[in-house]
Amino acid sequence: MVREVEGYKSAEHTKMYGLTRDVERGVRMALDEGNGRRLYRLIRPLHSADFADLVERYSGQERRLLVTVVGKYFDPDILAELDHAVREEVLTYLSEEVLIRAVSALPSDDVVEVIGELDADRQQRLLQVIPEADRVLVEEALAYDDDSAGRLMQRETVTVPLNWTVAQTLDFLFNDTDLPDEFYDIFVLDQAGRPSGQLSLSRLLRTERPVLVSDIMSTRFHRVLVHMDQEDVAMLFRQYGLVSAPVVDENNRLVGMITVDDVVDVIDEEAEEDLMHLGGVGEDDLHGGLLDTTRSRFSWLVVNLVTAMIAAGVIGIFETAIEKIVALAVLMPIVSSMGGNAGTQTLTVAVRALAMRELTATNASKFIVKETMVGSFNGIAFAFIAGTVSWIWFGDLQIAAILASAMVINLVVAGVFGTMIPIGLAHYRLDPAVASTVFLTTVTDVIGFLTFLGLATYFLM
Amino acid sequence: MVREVEGYKSAEHTKMYGLTRDVERGVRMALDEGNGRRLYRLIRPLHSADFADLVERYSGQERRLLVTVVGKYFDPDILAELDHAVREEVLTYLSEEVLIRAVSALPSDDVVEVIGELDADRQQRLLQVIPEADRVLVEEALAYDDDSAGRLMQRETVTVPLNWTVAQTLDFLFNDTDLPDEFYDIFVLDQAGRPSGQLSLSRLLRTERPVLVSDIMSTRFHRVLVHMDQEDVAMLFRQYGLVSAPVVDENNRLVGMITVDDVVDVIDEEAEEDLMHLGGVGEDDLHGGLLDTTRSRFSWLVVNLVTAMIAAGVIGIFETAIEKIVALAVLMPIVSSMGGNAGTQTLTVAVRALAMRELTATNASKFIVKETMVGSFNGIAFAFIAGTVSWIWFGDLQIAAILASAMVINLVVAGVFGTMIPIGLAHYRLDPAVASTVFLTTVTDVIGFLTFLGLATYFLM
Repeated sequence: MVREVEGYKSAEHTKMYGLTRDVERGVRMALDEGNGRRLYRLIRPLHSADFADLVERYSGQERRLLVTVVGKYFDPDILAELDHAVREEVLTYLSEEVLIRAVSALPSDDVVEVIGELDADRQQRLLQVIPEADRVLVEEALAYDDDSAGRLMQRETVTVPLNWTVAQTLDFLFNDTDLPDEFYDIFVLDQAGRPSGQLSLSRLLRTERPVLVSDIMSTRFHRVLVHMDQEDVAMLFRQYGLVSAPVVDENNRLVGMITVDDVVDVIDEEAEEDLMHLGGVGEDDLHGGLLDTTRSRFSWLVVNLVTAMIAAGVIGIFETAIEKIVALAVLMPIVSSMGGNAGTQTLTVAVRALAMRELTATNASKFIVKETMVGSFNGIAFAFIAGTVSWIWFGDLQIAAILASAMVINLVVAGVFGTMIPIGLAHYRLDPAVASTVFLTTVTDVIGFLTFLGLATYFLM
Repeated sequence: MVREVEGYKSAEHTKMYGLTRDVERGVRMALDEGNGRRLYRLIRPLHSADFADLVERYSGQERRLLVTVVGKYFDPDILAELDHAVREEVLTYLSEEVLIRAVSALPSDDVVEVIGELDADRQQRLLQVIPEADRVLVEEALAYDDDSAGRLMQRETVTVPLNWTVAQTLDFLFNDTDLPDEFYDIFVLDQAGRPSGQLSLSRLLRTERPVLVSDIMSTRFHRVLVHMDQEDVAMLFRQYGLVSAPVVDENNRLVGMITVDDVVDVIDEEAEEDLMHLGGVGEDDLHGGLLDTTRSRFSWLVVNLVTAMIAAGVIGIFETAIEKIVALAVLMPIVSSMGGNAGTQTLTVAVRALAMRELTATNASKFIVKETMVGSFNGIAFAFIAGTVSWIWFGDLQIAAILASAMVINLVVAGVFGTMIPIGLAHYRLDPAVASTVFLTTVTDVIGFLTFLGLATYFLM
């Protein structure tokens, strides 16, 4: 059941990253001494992603010191690497001057992310000092929904007209000074600015100069609609192994491009969301403050308290039986616990399969049948095991038989509801990860107590 | 708490993918009619990734029919797209002839994956018929560990010597016929075959022809060691936003390259693993057969049964108290359930943070303190709420006070163990996702029942 986690504390790990244990130790000491000079010397050579990690690991005054010590040498890329909640804080430590420099240095998708997190006041001031052209782009992007392709994309693209040759394209790429730093594909546009094809650089390099780009471009490429949800964008990149994709508006005109590095972040975010929601926590939990975390956990636990109260209410119905046969009180949590766990197994598989679009209308019924069968088989197995143990324990065959029956029923119920709840939520376009667990455990607790105590009351009283 | 799941059943979704509802419906009908001609007509235009999805959604005879109908037109790329468990099955449906064609058409990383899944007999037969050069490469790759960079990488790379100019490099790229289909970076090698730098195609295209590649290559690039775990590779790509990276052996000589599309698959796999393990299921669960799934779920539920029995044993100690005050039996699951849920919240955050390397030795103690505080705050809040409700319910202030005290204790315990268990497991290089939940719920159940029933016995009996 257990497996080595390679990398954690491993030598390889420390060698691969700029943020080694030695650097971390040095930073710790420099912070304790308040030695800004030493701190600066340690931080300077770090990659922006590593420095961002360092900033995330500290908080409060220490975090502030880390940021201010780098001062005007602050690398704008760091902002793009920081976790959302941490970036909001770091932005308050930066001078207007550094912010303006960041806005002109970063690609437009990062600029939009940064500016979107400033308060309205600072946002306005910053928008006034950046160049007119940039401002229009940023304002346009801010108008798109938070999790849309429009927010994810960068406006900088490399495009050529349909009637160009390879030679013209190569000359253009060589001479134009306004191209993005990194790009992998060229988009070929028709006269109306609509992408007609996509051409990878490796393909371009391997074609003779007089050939028309329209003859070598791929026409079976994948467009991203600007209003598309980022989750769908990730699905598209994953499904077709894309490295970059053009983003188009409702008139099919090119408005930007999305590259795979942005998509990797989305994939991480979405996976984190599902995991966190199933565990009953929000996404920003790790980097949230003490009170924010307490509050967000609280609301989830309130729901759970209501669930637990309902289950307790069910037990309350059978007070008389428990008073007479105290063994019932001892054994009843076994039934509910096994149901809850078997249901969670099913639920987890369903939530992941829904997220990865592997569970669809086509195979939903097959999945439900399979899970119900698994529930029945394991229900019978555990009825036997738990029945035998309880028989030995309390020496009462009747109680053992009742426990066994309740076990079968609850594990079948767990299989059925473990599939139906997430599929039902997804059908009504609700996130299956958020609410499934509560619904499920309510069902398995209630059914668990109800069948076990109910059968006991019926047969033994 | 609930949020729309965009894409599920949405119009956008169906438009973006080749596998539309109409195609699915058509396939369903063709399968029911056993109409191979019609099936073939529907399947032919599908992208290999979409066809792979289709194959995954069916099973048994229908799956076999889907694969055999495509017959000798079977696109080898489909094999690369299929889920591991499904691929094993599909491989048994394919003729030797199709397999040989697949091996020569696929990039070496996919070939290794496919061949690695054949039984020893077929593996040998296939290795004998493929070209000598390919065979050596495949055999070498098969010698690497299953989840290592060596398995993930492709052997095909684009390399140039240090002393070449941009012009020489461009000519080479144009003329060499043996280059990979898609590449984004060129690796610049010294005389011993060790990478000295990495050069992106976009950079190459924008530099004047007489310039030496050594003058424009990036020397701060990231090497992947061939024995590195794929999880570490994913971390590296994610951390530094890489699109491709050279893979080197222990002598720092180039042996292959890894591209971001392979890494996206790894990221998905790792996220799935954590989610599944926390939910008590294995990774291959969705595509596993009925009996395999039942068996793998069974072993997890056995562990849970033992846990539940231990908790029941604790209740058993207090039989006398329960017999006298039956309200204890009604209220006791509330304490254990709240502890279990609060602990799961903490645990989930810890497991994710460990996987993303955001929780390290540097900030572990800070994290533990924060979680303990959150546990205390929410413990006090829920002590008050649950205490009041139970006071109203049973009209007994003493029982209410005991419930409140047990609640505080169990929620603090949940915070402490919810952090310590995963951190402890990771410290001993065990996967925190696999075993944490069992340990945690054992603790919160036992402590929950012990404090509540123990305090009741002490004060009320």
